[in-house]
Amino acid sequence: MLSDIEIAQRAKLKPIIEVARDLGLAEEDLELYGKYKAKVDNGLWERLRDRPPGKLIFTTAITPTPAGEGKTCTAIGLTQALGRLGKKVTVCLREPSMGPTFGVKGGAAGGGYSQVLPMEDINLHFTGDIHAVTAAHNVLAAVVDNHIFQGNSLNIDPKRVLWRRVVDVNDRQLRNVVCGLGNRVDGIPRESGFDITVASEIMALLCLAEGLQDFKERVGNVLVAYTRDGRPVFARDLKVAGALAVIMKDALKPNLVQTVEGQPAFVHGGPFANIAHGNNSILATRLALRLADYVVTEGGFGSDLGAEKFFDIVCGYGGFQPDAVVLVATVRALKMHGGLPLADVTRPDVEALGAGLANLDAHIDNVTGNFNLPVVVAVNRFPTDAEVELNLIREHCLARGIPVAVSEVVARGGEGGLELAEKVLAILARAPRGFRPLYDWNLPIREKIDILARRVYGADGVVFTDQAQADIETFTRLGFDKLPICMAKTQSSLSDNPRLLGRPKGWLLTVREVRASVGSGFLVALAGKIMTMPGLPQVPAAEKVDIDPAGNVVGLF
Amino acid sequence: MLSDIEIAQRAKLKPIIEVARDLGLAEEDLELYGKYKAKVDNGLWERLRDRPPGKLIFTTAITPTPAGEGKTCTAIGLTQALGRLGKKVTVCLREPSMGPTFGVKGGAAGGGYSQVLPMEDINLHFTGDIHAVTAAHNVLAAVVDNHIFQGNSLNIDPKRVLWRRVVDVNDRQLRNVVCGLGNRVDGIPRESGFDITVASEIMALLCLAEGLQDFKERVGNVLVAYTRDGRPVFARDLKVAGALAVIMKDALKPNLVQTVEGQPAFVHGGPFANIAHGNNSILATRLALRLADYVVTEGGFGSDLGAEKFFDIVCGYGGFQPDAVVLVATVRALKMHGGLPLADVTRPDVEALGAGLANLDAHIDNVTGNFNLPVVVAVNRFPTDAEVELNLIREHCLARGIPVAVSEVVARGGEGGLELAEKVLAILARAPRGFRPLYDWNLPIREKIDILARRVYGADGVVFTDQAQADIETFTRLGFDKLPICMAKTQSSLSDNPRLLGRPKGWLLTVREVRASVGSGFLVALAGKIMTMPGLPQVPAAEKVDIDPAGNVVGLF
Repeated sequence: MLSDIEIAQRAKLKPIIEVARDLGLAEEDLELYGKYKAKVDNGLWERLRDRPPGKLIFTTAITPTPAGEGKTCTAIGLTQALGRLGKKVTVCLREPSMGPTFGVKGGAAGGGYSQVLPMEDINLHFTGDIHAVTAAHNVLAAVVDNHIFQGNSLNIDPKRVLWRRVVDVNDRQLRNVVCGLGNRVDGIPRESGFDITVASEIMALLCLAEGLQDFKERVGNVLVAYTRDGRPVFARDLKVAGALAVIMKDALKPNLVQTVEGQPAFVHGGPFANIAHGNNSILATRLALRLADYVVTEGGFGSDLGAEKFFDIVCGYGGFQPDAVVLVATVRALKMHGGLPLADVTRPDVEALGAGLANLDAHIDNVTGNFNLPVVVAVNRFPTDAEVELNLIREHCLARGIPVAVSEVVARGGEGGLELAEKVLAILARAPRGFRPLYDWNLPIREKIDILARRVYGADGVVFTDQAQADIETFTRLGFDKLPICMAKTQSSLSDNPRLLGRPKGWLLTVREVRASVGSGFLVALAGKIMTMPGLPQVPAAEKVDIDPAGNVVGLF
Repeated sequence: MLSDIEIAQRAKLKPIIEVARDLGLAEEDLELYGKYKAKVDNGLWERLRDRPPGKLIFTTAITPTPAGEGKTCTAIGLTQALGRLGKKVTVCLREPSMGPTFGVKGGAAGGGYSQVLPMEDINLHFTGDIHAVTAAHNVLAAVVDNHIFQGNSLNIDPKRVLWRRVVDVNDRQLRNVVCGLGNRVDGIPRESGFDITVASEIMALLCLAEGLQDFKERVGNVLVAYTRDGRPVFARDLKVAGALAVIMKDALKPNLVQTVEGQPAFVHGGPFANIAHGNNSILATRLALRLADYVVTEGGFGSDLGAEKFFDIVCGYGGFQPDAVVLVATVRALKMHGGLPLADVTRPDVEALGAGLANLDAHIDNVTGNFNLPVVVAVNRFPTDAEVELNLIREHCLARGIPVAVSEVVARGGEGGLELAEKVLAILARAPRGFRPLYDWNLPIREKIDILARRVYGADGVVFTDQAQADIETFTRLGFDKLPICMAKTQSSLSDNPRLLGRPKGWLLTVREVRASVGSGFLVALAGKIMTMPGLPQVPAAEKVDIDPAGNVVGLF
């Protein structure tokens, strides 16, 4: 099979104006970025907001393993398959961060014959949204330090500046720095550090804002520091909410591209899926729901993270009512959950697979039980999967009354997703809308976390460290306790211990710290040490990426 | 008079496709970035390279003072005036850095009725070129540190890593940092720091490259560190030249916008004018010269810096033959050069003005004597200028046989530049092409610096510190001695002492250090402490920039 970039470069793209026309959009609704990318003006929303929304299909996965799941490919392939069935459909995805592109091989624009295009652009600068987040974030950081340097009339405690800096590069060297060194004119020495841009609260806010004025209002609420006497300092206190909105004004416009098979695709916003909510922008999804009859979207990691956050945070802010869930699993990954080491996952092993189904069940239970949503299991087929293994998953699901489809969208595009598409249409036709979020935002912070721990992760309860208890008291006192919870937990386990695969039982979730993303509108509960700045591997992908003599990009993926 | 942004927002823009048509370009030659910005594909060059080039007019200025000169406005206004005279003309400008936009009020896209548009875009993210430079620069930095961390097979000395990091923010807090702190997995502790993006060698190289393959070749030559045994380490040793070229592939395409009066304007590349060469890209200028009969361009600071570097570095790499120079002066600034404090420059003072003319003379002598180019003095008129003062400048120039024109392009647009345009056309009609660079690149490093010091700055000679001597020996040994010299000297004086206005005599230039920008292709001689990371002022411009309820940008300038 061809590589992703070879497939991407051989695809015949339609001018984005034509793609937009399929959604009923005219050229004046678009801001073109070359021939194949466009931003859609948010003014369009005012014209469309009263239309009835299309069906919203959320794609999630079992607990990720190094064996791979293929959630984004499945979302794109399903969209292509629905298109082949004559449906008016679009897909809403997160936009990839450039940092990892040059770190570990692997993009976030799908793969094989289920990609969004133009692939190189989407994985590089795209329309500049992530660069805008970097700029806005770092302007705010510079203004905070400048305020301290220029007399510090707000009495900011240099030891309690919460706002770090960001770059869109995998750069472990910047995780922990001492800045402000040098002479008297070179700032105030203090400890700080850098995160990767997609971990910025500005990125989360881009994805949760309802428009430019809402963004400006909420970015003013970003908590940047505490004063020496313990009062919170917000971005608005530094008078830069307007400037940050100006920097972000174009980034807030959803990006329109196309799938390999020419369907419209919105690719907009890409927040971290642990310390943030890991879903694309509300602005893109709400627009898509007014333009298409079916909207497929996806969120980061397993259903305990991206999906839960979509249902409990994004749907709350965006007013969305999801209609169905596609839960992606692979034979390989389920065998790892059943105890097989990565090196052995290509070997048929019905016993390991059978044991690993516990993880699939946990995610099915989460989606159906906690959120009252119908689910279709999509088995993303790999060439090494044995028929007996696929049958075992089929039988297991059918015994539970859960529809299941084997999907081959990476190798075969939409054609390989027809069975999945038909099963999705069937549950949509059958199921009345029954979505309900898991918890009431007005519950006390501890109670919200306790509900998540027991009902989504399967814990027996929650342990709060002294730090976490102090944080909860502070935020309750400051009135931030009515915000939803964004759990920062390992993606590699349903529990807070990345080594516990399958469906861990008999454990307690430890919450070490709580942070307040007041601007984007959630509290981050940290259950473990969360990496917010990846490093480069021994041989960075950058060494393979090149321009060939004809000017083509090679080695990307 | 209206503010710059009010004039910009009231201007009626032509679709950029129409602007391009005036240059003979078709829609397929463009990559649109919205309706009013486009990138021009470098493939066009292959079609046009054999055309005879148009006339090249370089705009420079006297030694800058806080009283203001107006070089960019004059270049734009002259272009507009030449357009009014029926000439096929375009202007090539540097693109502004976003950092200062939120620092000190003031843009780099002209002013009043001599601006390039869309002004907000050009002063914000524009087409993402500067963000691409940030990304490429910081990927290289991360790869260097990752190499050290992952075993350091090249034996890089962590104390001799030359490649810092960059952000496009005025952020003094980042000038000096200790990075790599934390745990064992968090890098190698060492001192480093951040510069503003436009000070990156990647930006200089963007402006000096002849295309993507040339960029890739030359970015591999960037000197990033020395080994523990003193051997140079280049970017190519880290195998990332291809990846850096991929990151920069779109940034290398010239940007096309328009003047307030609808003429085409190329705005592409913006390197620092002290530690780099301070001129827009060769790619834009060489294309413009094949598309228009007259091309107006400009460079940073006075003729001792931007102009000298254009003539000695850019013309060498680009193969350009400039035809004429416009030397911008103001009555106010000349009075400061004659000893008047800034507070008094609005008061008529013929005596101070007379004394200040020495600075004008030095720049006239530089352009005509050192480069054999004809010059027109453009007096950029301010409302407080007295007629007797304007007359004094006129008489002084005419006595020297130098054409002079009073220009009012800020207040009146092209109409206010007609006298200047006519004088420029007159010298172009009269003068045969006689341009010659000042020195032969093959001379020894010390000799090249000595020529610059005596003949351009008016020094009696050069003092090299021990460090500078050691650097020169190293670079001569490494074979970098055939590169042209880029002097990093204060812009505020012809000398190396910013307090010496007018035309300083009886002084020696002190060169403290020499650095090798081997990728972009010049040696940087540092004559003084050069700021490569600005700070924010007490009240940053960011506090005034805002989005109004209708979604318009306000407070920018």
